[in-house]
Parts: sequence; C-alpha cells; structure tokens
Amino acid sequence: MAPPARFDIIAIGNAIVDVIARADDALIDAEGLTKGSMRLIDAVEAERLYAAMGPAVEMSGGSAANTLAGMAALGQRCAFIGQVADDQLGHVFTHDLRALGVAYDTPALSAGAPTARCLILVTPDGQRTMNTFLGASHLLEQAMIAEDRIAASDILYLEGYLWDPPLSRAAMRRAIDVAREAGRKVAFTLSDAFIIDRHGPDFRALIAEGLFDILFANEVEIGALAEEADFETAVAKVAAQVPLLVVTRGEKGAIAIRNGERSAVDAEPIDQVVDTTGAGDLFAAGFLAGLAEGRPDAECLTMGAICAREIIAQVGPRAQTDLKARIAARLG
Amino acid sequence: MAPPARFDIIAIGNAIVDVIARADDALIDAEGLTKGSMRLIDAVEAERLYAAMGPAVEMSGGSAANTLAGMAALGQRCAFIGQVADDQLGHVFTHDLRALGVAYDTPALSAGAPTARCLILVTPDGQRTMNTFLGASHLLEQAMIAEDRIAASDILYLEGYLWDPPLSRAAMRRAIDVAREAGRKVAFTLSDAFIIDRHGPDFRALIAEGLFDILFANEVEIGALAEEADFETAVAKVAAQVPLLVVTRGEKGAIAIRNGERSAVDAEPIDQVVDTTGAGDLFAAGFLAGLAEGRPDAECLTMGAICAREIIAQVGPRAQTDLKARIAARLG
Repeated sequence: MAPPARFDIIAIGNAIVDVIARADDALIDAEGLTKGSMRLIDAVEAERLYAAMGPAVEMSGGSAANTLAGMAALGQRCAFIGQVADDQLGHVFTHDLRALGVAYDTPALSAGAPTARCLILVTPDGQRTMNTFLGASHLLEQAMIAEDRIAASDILYLEGYLWDPPLSRAAMRRAIDVAREAGRKVAFTLSDAFIIDRHGPDFRALIAEGLFDILFANEVEIGALAEEADFETAVAKVAAQVPLLVVTRGEKGAIAIRNGERSAVDAEPIDQVVDTTGAGDLFAAGFLAGLAEGRPDAECLTMGAICAREIIAQVGPRAQTDLKARIAARLG
Repeated sequence: MAPPARFDIIAIGNAIVDVIARADDALIDAEGLTKGSMRLIDAVEAERLYAAMGPAVEMSGGSAANTLAGMAALGQRCAFIGQVADDQLGHVFTHDLRALGVAYDTPALSAGAPTARCLILVTPDGQRTMNTFLGASHLLEQAMIAEDRIAASDILYLEGYLWDPPLSRAAMRRAIDVAREAGRKVAFTLSDAFIIDRHGPDFRALIAEGLFDILFANEVEIGALAEEADFETAVAKVAAQVPLLVVTRGEKGAIAIRNGERSAVDAEPIDQVVDTTGAGDLFAAGFLAGLAEGRPDAECLTMGAICAREIIAQVGPRAQTDLKARIAARLG
C-alpha cells in the first residue's frame, strides 16, 4: 500500500499562455489551416501569424494545466510540473495556477526561449484552431521532474503533447516509473491525432505494458490509436488493455469503460458554442474530480460534461464561472 | 480652412494592458479599495496585489486606446500615441491596436520601466475597481508626440489620466497647441474624479481659454469640475463654456449639450452587467464615430449607448462582438 497522498493529482504538461482571437473561415483557409486541429510552429511563424490575426485576449492555457485549474476549482489538491520562461507571460501562467491553489514551482527557464504561447483562431462556429509555439515548455528536462511530489500524488496525469519533444518525452517516461514504483495511478490523455501519428507505436507499447490506469481520448484519437476506422471496434480493442478508458464524443457525449463495464453520458445542452478551446481538458477535470471524490463512473461523466459545457460557453480554457456551484446544483 | 484630414481622430493616452480577475467584495474591503474607482500603484504594490488576486485574463486596455479600438471597429480612421515598453505586454498592446487598423508607431521604451498594466477587480455586481501601474506609459515625452499626425487629424482626443504625470502633461499641452494651430478640434475626457481633484484648476483654465471643443464627463466628474453638488447646475455651468459637452450617467443614460441645445438618450437595456470596464471609453467611441459620420447628436448618443452596452455585457474593454453590425441594426 502506498502512504496517504499529499496531492489528489499531479500533472506534467506544457506551460502555455493562449492568445485567442476571433477569425473568419477565410483566414483559416488563407492560412491553409485544418480547422479544429493543433499544429506546432516556430518563433518566426508565430510572429507572422500573430501579425495576421485580429485583436486578441490572453489567458493561461496548456492542456493538462487547464485540467488542473478545473480540478483545483472543484476542490482537489493539485500539483503541476511544466516550464515557463522568466518573462511576463511566464509570470501570468504561474500566477494563474497558483491563484487557484495549485502547487507549482518548476523553476522558470532564465534564457534561451520565451514562454510558450498558443495562437488560437476561433471561428464563428465556435471551433478553435491552435498554433503552438512551444518555447521554454518543450525544453523541460528530466531534472525538473519533482519525483517526491509524483510519489506523493494519487494520480500522475500526463498529456500526450509532451511526448513530442525528446527532452520532455524522456522526463515523462521517468515520471511514469516514479509513479508506478510509488504505487500510484497513471492517467494519460492522447491530446491530438498528430501525436498518435508520430508516437502511436510508443503509446501502444506503454499500454501493452499496463502502464496506464486511465486513458482519455476523443473519437479521432481512439481510432488512430487502435488503427480501426469503426468507433466501437476501436473502443473495444483499447478498453481490453486499459483498466479505465474515457472517450469524449463532442455533441454525442462521452463514455467510460471500466473493466468491460460501460457508462455513458449525453452532452449538456447549450444555447451557443462560443469557443471549444479547453473542452476536452475541462471534461477530464470534471471526470477526474469525480473519481477523486469516489463517485461512480456515470456521475464522473456527468461532472465532465458539466465542466465541458461551461468552458465552451465562454472564451478561453480557464473557467470564469463557478464550476463547483454548477456541479453541486446538479449532483449535490 | 484646414486641409483634408488623414485621420478622423488621433488620441494620446496611456498604453496599458488590463489584467482582469473576478473578486468578491471581501477582497475589495480587505484591500481598502474604493469600488468603481481607479488608483495609481507602484511596481511593488502591483506585485503584491497581483499575488492576492485570483486567476486573470489579459486584454489590451487604456482609456483613449479603448475608445480608438471601438472607433476603428466602427470604420473610423484612427491614430494613437502612447508608450509601451519593448516587452511581451507591449507587443500585445501594439498588436491589438494595429490589428484593428489603428496607426500606431510610438517607439517602445527600450529600458527603465515595463509596459503599464492595470489590475482590475470585477465584483459580482459587474463593477470594476482599477489599480494602475503606469510603467513606461507615464514616461511619454513631448518628443514622442507625432505633430504632423496631430495636424492631419480632424480631432485630437486626450484622456485626463495623462494629465497626472508631469512628462505626459507637458506633451499633452503641446499637442493641444499643435491641433489648434492646424485648425483641428480638441476633445477631452476627464477620466476620473481624482484627476480633477489634482488638476481641476488646470482644466478650468483650459476650458476658460476655449481650448476644448468637446468635453466628456460622467456625473461625478462634472460635479467635481464645476465644483457644484447639483447635477443640473454643474452641467449648465460647464456647458456655457464648452461648445459640446457630453455627460454619461450610467443607468440613467447620457446627455449632450451643444451650444445650449440638449439631447438625451436612455441607457440600453441589458440582462446582466458582466463587467463595466471600458463602459465610458466605448460610449465615447460610439459618440465620436457618430460625430465623424455627421449624425445628429441624438444619434451619436444612441451609438454611444449601444457601444457601452456591448462592452458591459462582456469581460474587458475591447469589444468581442461586432459593434458595426449592432449600430447598423438600430440606426442603419
């Protein structure tokens, strides 16, 4: 048995500030972007695209960090590992996590790259198209992984995005070993289909080894991971290898399969989708918070759906409404 | 006769990025703040208060800059003078104005102070309480005033906030002379009661000299300027000295008095006041855009009320909705 945990969850993720602008479909087309996707860009492209974008709003982001922000708002004890630079955007990111009570003290990179930013174009349909300059974030070294904290957290939560840069990939691999040696659970989110395109074999090997206790995916990602076009076939294939699989399906809601037992939830009704940025991240926040509270999977799914709904009804991936009150009003 | 103008308006104002966080009344009380006011703070106090604030959103701000952003969105030709530092927040401010088509190329300060920021606490009633660290903004020197642009703009628009720092005050005084020598109009917004407390005699002297063609004030400011407690008495006193006086009255709407002739408008109906940040700035944007379009005062007031309504229905002082469409739907 592992000793009592200091944190309900610790996450390793990219430390990113989002730069969010409204855009029409013509700009998405002119830039040759794939609506709804995420792509990595370098500093030069970031400058060029920024100049082509309309006026923006800045808000802390990062997939796993968004999830933690949601969980912290729901009362969970959270810790974060991720690297900003010692600059104004880095201070913004750090402030916004700490202000929620998240334990976060990965040292800021003092030179070499600025804080990561994600240029997000939100089209009138509410879809977000992301262009990420990873900056200091992808230079996260293994030495920055606070192993004592990982060992003292019930769940280690990792985002697939960090699997791409070699430095952070090695750090993640080490973190998994630390968590497992300490008898903790490991949760993983696949993040984006392009990550699976590049690292599918890695992920399939990790899953086969039994290293992931909880896996989050959306419909596209689960198909890519399973290499199966049919949704149910893909789900069945992956669910057979992971103790708890959670798949989000946008307007069709979400499902969870725990050791063969399936739960499902509808998407929450919404008048207008303002901005889908962070929808998956906040779904994970609600689900994991429910799990930490010992709720049945069906309720965890409902919590995920409520949090996702709140975030797509606003601009940006950090909730400006009271998530806890929204959950309490529904589930008590 | 002045030659045809290149710009409908040129503004001189503080170049500020807003940092906006939800706050409860207890924080306002604990910090000893006056709800709804603006106060100036130094770098140390800015760090301390930021640490006490919740997670925030960053958005370009600055009173006159907000007004220009609104006017640019309404199709006016705008130019801005104001000083940021060469840092990330400075780039954000510069981007957001240029992305709207505003001509803005005051050189960024390369050392000595960071870009100004305004820490804004928004209480559940939608009121904003502002704490401004002026940084590079208040170091605007007279040499930075683009005199050729002022001479080539129909209206020079100045914010009272810039009257406070000695450097920018001298720059503003020179700008007024340049505009008048070129046969242009000068518009002035009183900004905040504390500015009038400090510089009332200056303002009264400028008005007596006939240097302001258009004056914007709210109820508190007009009383402070006139040194009259009764609203109508204060309005009558100032209106006798200014060709066009515009007074905003919050929920009670606004009035304009042009050479003794009075127009009035009700406030636009709104379901929920989300955040009053920028309400006065956007009222001025709508009013001045109407003026530039040659509309009667009553329509200018309506345009101001529509723009103010849009901005208090959202977080932050830069419109995320289509102001032009809102105006067109009402006035054509």
